[in-house]
Amino acid sequence: MKKIDVCIIGARSLSSGSLIKLLLQHDRVNIKMLVSDKAGEDIQKIHPFLHGILEKNTEKYDPAKIIDNCDVVFMHKHHGEALNKTGELASLSSKKKKDVKFIDLSADFRLKDKNLYDEWYKFAHTQPQLLKKAIYGLTELYRDKIKNATLVANPGCYPTATILGLTPLLKNRLVDNSQSIVIDVLSGVSGAGKLPNGVNLAIDVEQNVIPYKIGRKHQHIPEIEQELCNMLGEKVTVTFSPHVLPFKYGILSTSYVKLKNAYEWDDIHKLYKKMYANESFIRILDNDVYPQVKDVEGTNFCDIGFSVDKKTRMCVVISAIDNVIKGASGQAIQNMNVMCGFNESEGLPYGSVLRKH
Amino acid sequence: MKKIDVCIIGARSLSSGSLIKLLLQHDRVNIKMLVSDKAGEDIQKIHPFLHGILEKNTEKYDPAKIIDNCDVVFMHKHHGEALNKTGELASLSSKKKKDVKFIDLSADFRLKDKNLYDEWYKFAHTQPQLLKKAIYGLTELYRDKIKNATLVANPGCYPTATILGLTPLLKNRLVDNSQSIVIDVLSGVSGAGKLPNGVNLAIDVEQNVIPYKIGRKHQHIPEIEQELCNMLGEKVTVTFSPHVLPFKYGILSTSYVKLKNAYEWDDIHKLYKKMYANESFIRILDNDVYPQVKDVEGTNFCDIGFSVDKKTRMCVVISAIDNVIKGASGQAIQNMNVMCGFNESEGLPYGSVLRKH
Amino acid sequence: MKKIDVCIIGARSLSSGSLIKLLLQHDRVNIKMLVSDKAGEDIQKIHPFLHGILEKNTEKYDPAKIIDNCDVVFMHKHHGEALNKTGELASLSSKKKKDVKFIDLSADFRLKDKNLYDEWYKFAHTQPQLLKKAIYGLTELYRDKIKNATLVANPGCYPTATILGLTPLLKNRLVDNSQSIVIDVLSGVSGAGKLPNGVNLAIDVEQNVIPYKIGRKHQHIPEIEQELCNMLGEKVTVTFSPHVLPFKYGILSTSYVKLKNAYEWDDIHKLYKKMYANESFIRILDNDVYPQVKDVEGTNFCDIGFSVDKKTRMCVVISAIDNVIKGASGQAIQNMNVMCGFNESEGLPYGSVLRKH
Amino acid sequence: MKKIDVCIIGARSLSSGSLIKLLLQHDRVNIKMLVSDKAGEDIQKIHPFLHGILEKNTEKYDPAKIIDNCDVVFMHKHHGEALNKTGELASLSSKKKKDVKFIDLSADFRLKDKNLYDEWYKFAHTQPQLLKKAIYGLTELYRDKIKNATLVANPGCYPTATILGLTPLLKNRLVDNSQSIVIDVLSGVSGAGKLPNGVNLAIDVEQNVIPYKIGRKHQHIPEIEQELCNMLGEKVTVTFSPHVLPFKYGILSTSYVKLKNAYEWDDIHKLYKKMYANESFIRILDNDVYPQVKDVEGTNFCDIGFSVDKKTRMCVVISAIDNVIKGASGQAIQNMNVMCGFNESEGLPYGSVLRKH
Repeated sequence: MKKIDVCIIGARSLSSGSLIKLLLQHDRVNIKMLVSDKAGEDIQKIHPFLHGILEKNTEKYDPAKIIDNCDVVFMHKHHGEALNKTGELASLSSKKKKDVKFIDLSADFRLKDKNLYDEWYKFAHTQPQLLKKAIYGLTELYRDKIKNATLVANPGCYPTATILGLTPLLKNRLVDNSQSIVIDVLSGVSGAGKLPNGVNLAIDVEQNVIPYKIGRKHQHIPEIEQELCNMLGEKVTVTFSPHVLPFKYGILSTSYVKLKNAYEWDDIHKLYKKMYANESFIRILDNDVYPQVKDVEGTNFCDIGFSVDKKTRMCVVISAIDNVIKGASGQAIQNMNVMCGFNESEGLPYGSVLRKH
Repeated sequence: MKKIDVCIIGARSLSSGSLIKLLLQHDRVNIKMLVSDKAGEDIQKIHPFLHGILEKNTEKYDPAKIIDNCDVVFMHKHHGEALNKTGELASLSSKKKKDVKFIDLSADFRLKDKNLYDEWYKFAHTQPQLLKKAIYGLTELYRDKIKNATLVANPGCYPTATILGLTPLLKNRLVDNSQSIVIDVLSGVSGAGKLPNGVNLAIDVEQNVIPYKIGRKHQHIPEIEQELCNMLGEKVTVTFSPHVLPFKYGILSTSYVKLKNAYEWDDIHKLYKKMYANESFIRILDNDVYPQVKDVEGTNFCDIGFSVDKKTRMCVVISAIDNVIKGASGQAIQNMNVMCGFNESEGLPYGSVLRKH
Repeated sequence: MKKIDVCIIGARSLSSGSLIKLLLQHDRVNIKMLVSDKAGEDIQKIHPFLHGILEKNTEKYDPAKIIDNCDVVFMHKHHGEALNKTGELASLSSKKKKDVKFIDLSADFRLKDKNLYDEWYKFAHTQPQLLKKAIYGLTELYRDKIKNATLVANPGCYPTATILGLTPLLKNRLVDNSQSIVIDVLSGVSGAGKLPNGVNLAIDVEQNVIPYKIGRKHQHIPEIEQELCNMLGEKVTVTFSPHVLPFKYGILSTSYVKLKNAYEWDDIHKLYKKMYANESFIRILDNDVYPQVKDVEGTNFCDIGFSVDKKTRMCVVISAIDNVIKGASGQAIQNMNVMCGFNESEGLPYGSVLRKH
Repeated sequence: MKKIDVCIIGARSLSSGSLIKLLLQHDRVNIKMLVSDKAGEDIQKIHPFLHGILEKNTEKYDPAKIIDNCDVVFMHKHHGEALNKTGELASLSSKKKKDVKFIDLSADFRLKDKNLYDEWYKFAHTQPQLLKKAIYGLTELYRDKIKNATLVANPGCYPTATILGLTPLLKNRLVDNSQSIVIDVLSGVSGAGKLPNGVNLAIDVEQNVIPYKIGRKHQHIPEIEQELCNMLGEKVTVTFSPHVLPFKYGILSTSYVKLKNAYEWDDIHKLYKKMYANESFIRILDNDVYPQVKDVEGTNFCDIGFSVDKKTRMCVVISAIDNVIKGASGQAIQNMNVMCGFNESEGLPYGSVLRKH
């Protein structure tokens, strides 16, 4: 069985570490190149959990070498930096008539309206052509397009959990869109980066809850609104409050939507089960059972539970993912599997047990 | 300076431990009796942090002894159990013409409509007369009534944080009451009790988020609705989602209300500052600053911050307390201070610095 | 490729949950039976992380059914309870001329001197014949015997980390045995069980360190001394202090031994590298690098680092494992692999990358 | 009652925050000046828990202003930086014939042998005269000298816990000094500073144990050895292994010493009780009870428990403190109280209950 060769650009990041860990256990993948601004470092020193498992040094960014040697490129750079590198590599790949596939884990290709980059990310998008071709990589929603994509924009962690939780309500037009959808999200510190920023030192995070970017501030808002709007066919506005909490991995998203009618829990449940019937990584919980971060930690699952109050017609949807896996590295591999024609769950935790696609 | 003698019934509980710790540092209080179902235990063994500080054994519940010896009784029993003991003691106190004051930390005297006990607590209230006389002990709201009260019903932890956060919006009639107020609350494990219940073992709580009683389930809902309704003069319905998280002490409440008009942050801020101008324990934060649990831990403060989105007219109010102090023992002492004519902040952390009442 | 059928007795326990999780990803294993005192429960309810992955109910203990249907039995019962069940099953297996293999995760077959059970576990050993045949399942030390064993006594978590850390020093006779080896061990709460015991409630464990069974008290002492003594050929006495700490998975063991001579770090390092050269699951760290629990979490690794002080001749050996994996379920699978003739790392994390045996 | 005016130099640090918090509740103290490299900052922004409690800006370091206006100076600067500032201030105070008292929380005046600074702190001590006059501020050991001291060197956190735990054994000459005393210490992250260093990011600390400076590396070794040596009158060598763990406040020190004879627990216990009979802040625990970090958190206590094994003659002493309070700010106040002739427990938690000195 021929293996594909992959390159990871930005190999020092936390989610690159997670990606390497998973790819090492993927039978169809060979980790060919690890690219980093800081070249020549032993990857075992950067990610000590790799000690004895992967002997490889980081190397400098060399576009030609990447395109000549790799089949898939995972781009792990900061927003605003990824788009130019991806642009350069994509155009080189095309020039060399190679069919290299790109999975970008930054936000640089997620928003279809390029003006939103000025507004939310404070940079002008320099690759509008590529942006048009990029497919939003929420696998469950865009599987068919991802199959033939050259560039997939891997979704943000909050959007992944939230959108998957709300999709059945919106696609089935159950939502009273006259009031703002409230989304209250809780994230572990792995989402907070490694540079001191007031929300990632243990002394600040332990025994604490840190609300941040409250109001219309967080850059994942346009990403969520874009997708909800696509489903409903009309403008959707969300009120979005993120909090950092003292656990490492995971996101729990609690969304509050008003339903158009006084549905029963069972009605809604049937729609969820139906919509996600063939999905390996989505688990719909039973009545009165709600997702817990611990049950998805280390996996590519998105667990979803919900309550319906007939009197107020308020539906509370709770969804949980591992932010570093389904919210980053795992979904990236899920997308790679789709792009490369592998089983969609190949190389992911419980992959062999889960094969539905 | 004469000290008052106090009795704590239910001395083994976590919040009794906190109450003892605080009362030991209160210059006007003598801890006279510690009552427990399990009599004869050394309180230093029950609460090891008291080692060397308080040498006292628990004793059995003896109504006459309590009434004869104590000025203030703190009742720390489970819901449904506190009301009969309080009834018995209050009637004995009255018969003996003693002016003993009672502060009940259970829910048994918080709800004015006694039928709510059948619905939410699953017991029939046996002390309707006493219930009428009980004052809801959210000190900031009912100070004047507490001054002359014999029985104060100390509020629940979630209601304390949430109601204090919402009061200025409701009292000033800024709220569009046509849509359900969404309240998303996060609690530390100290609120989860000591009997195994799926939400208090370290192995279940660490690295986890546990949503529970989602939908119209949690018993603090009627308490919050009663008070919000009192302010607004009309029925208020809340959607309330509690979560247990891996920290010990604290509650963070994030409330979402739709405002009637497109107010500016500054307008709202002025109202908050004005309403709480004379309060020692309420701190209104600056623009773009939000409460963090760590900054109220170990104190009787309630910190409040909020954002206003003019477009959607959604106001997000975040309030934080130490659930065991402002949410239980500290507020109980605050109430005791008011009932006994002491300075309201006496014996509480930073008390001497804070004196406003 | 034919799969073996396995039975897990005591399926509700935390380490059974871990065992199921790993076995599900083992290509050569079919989970045939899940036995529990509480029969008829959906395993997905007991271990919610299994939702959607394994649909199977627990069943009652039925010796004949187990022996007729299974090739390997994992015994997860409390000390003193496992030995009789194992005895019954082993004798039935022998009577039926079946070659069922047993891996006991309790302490019941770990100590060769049966009198130690009276002393340390407070029960009389009822299966002395079986005890003689049992092989102590520290795979790295007893691989050859395990290959042909019918019954393997899976080691305790503290002994696994500690013994692996000390083996090269003792086998190479570098230790001055005139002074007690000091072993200071730190365990996550997953080692503390689920019944309330003062060391497993979140409110007791968070923000805390809990030393327990200090002095000559902990039941893992004779297990460690037995193995160290086997290596040295003389009596070894250890001073052993366990502590419970606020993390979920992992053990870090810090051992202090006096060396016979003033060795250099490099000398010792060579001996460690040589002794463990062919081991998949043992990683010897570089100079001035020490194991951290996070780097072994979720794996079957034992990481080892050490310092040598030439002046005092004190050698500090630090070893870390995931207590639930290398300290229980993972090592059980490692032993199963050896007993069944599979690759030793088969089905374990990074298994395909690690194959040395 | 006249208040003294105090100045805190280095007001941004974590332990300065703790110091301010405690001093605010000290009836005899007025916080006069807060000095910081970054002048003009609102202290409420630096330490948000001070919101509404202390309105004061930091100011630049101005020696004359400090000496003219303050009675006590707390020096919170990094090692190597504190000594020159202290030297400058002390000499100015002397020149101006003012009796300003200095409490230095750095290591710069703790080691009597100035050559140790070259060896362990990598700087040459520039204030040898002042070093001679400085008193080591372990209050329980040097109370009489502290009374008349101008400069007190506040002890390190690890040394405080460890030395207090070992003192009765050494002063009573019970220790077999032919073998190295093993000291295994566990610290919360508040000891790890706020600059990124691999041991203080939440993502690195949570769910982890981090051994660091293993072997003869940690700068607290000479401090501990100096004091143990002073007690015994002969050279003492310790083997010292620090670990950072996922809790915020606290140190637990587990020391292993070989006793000269096979003493009973009761014998040792009597000596401990006797030695510390008049100490407010030292609590000797009962047989089979060991200190837990949670019971000293937020206090100035040092809790001590121990076991004795007659066979091996090994004594395991466990002591716990809050590293930021008894290990820094609290002990600094305890020293200030002694220097100023106040009650020793004044202004410290439970102070009024504890007065023994």
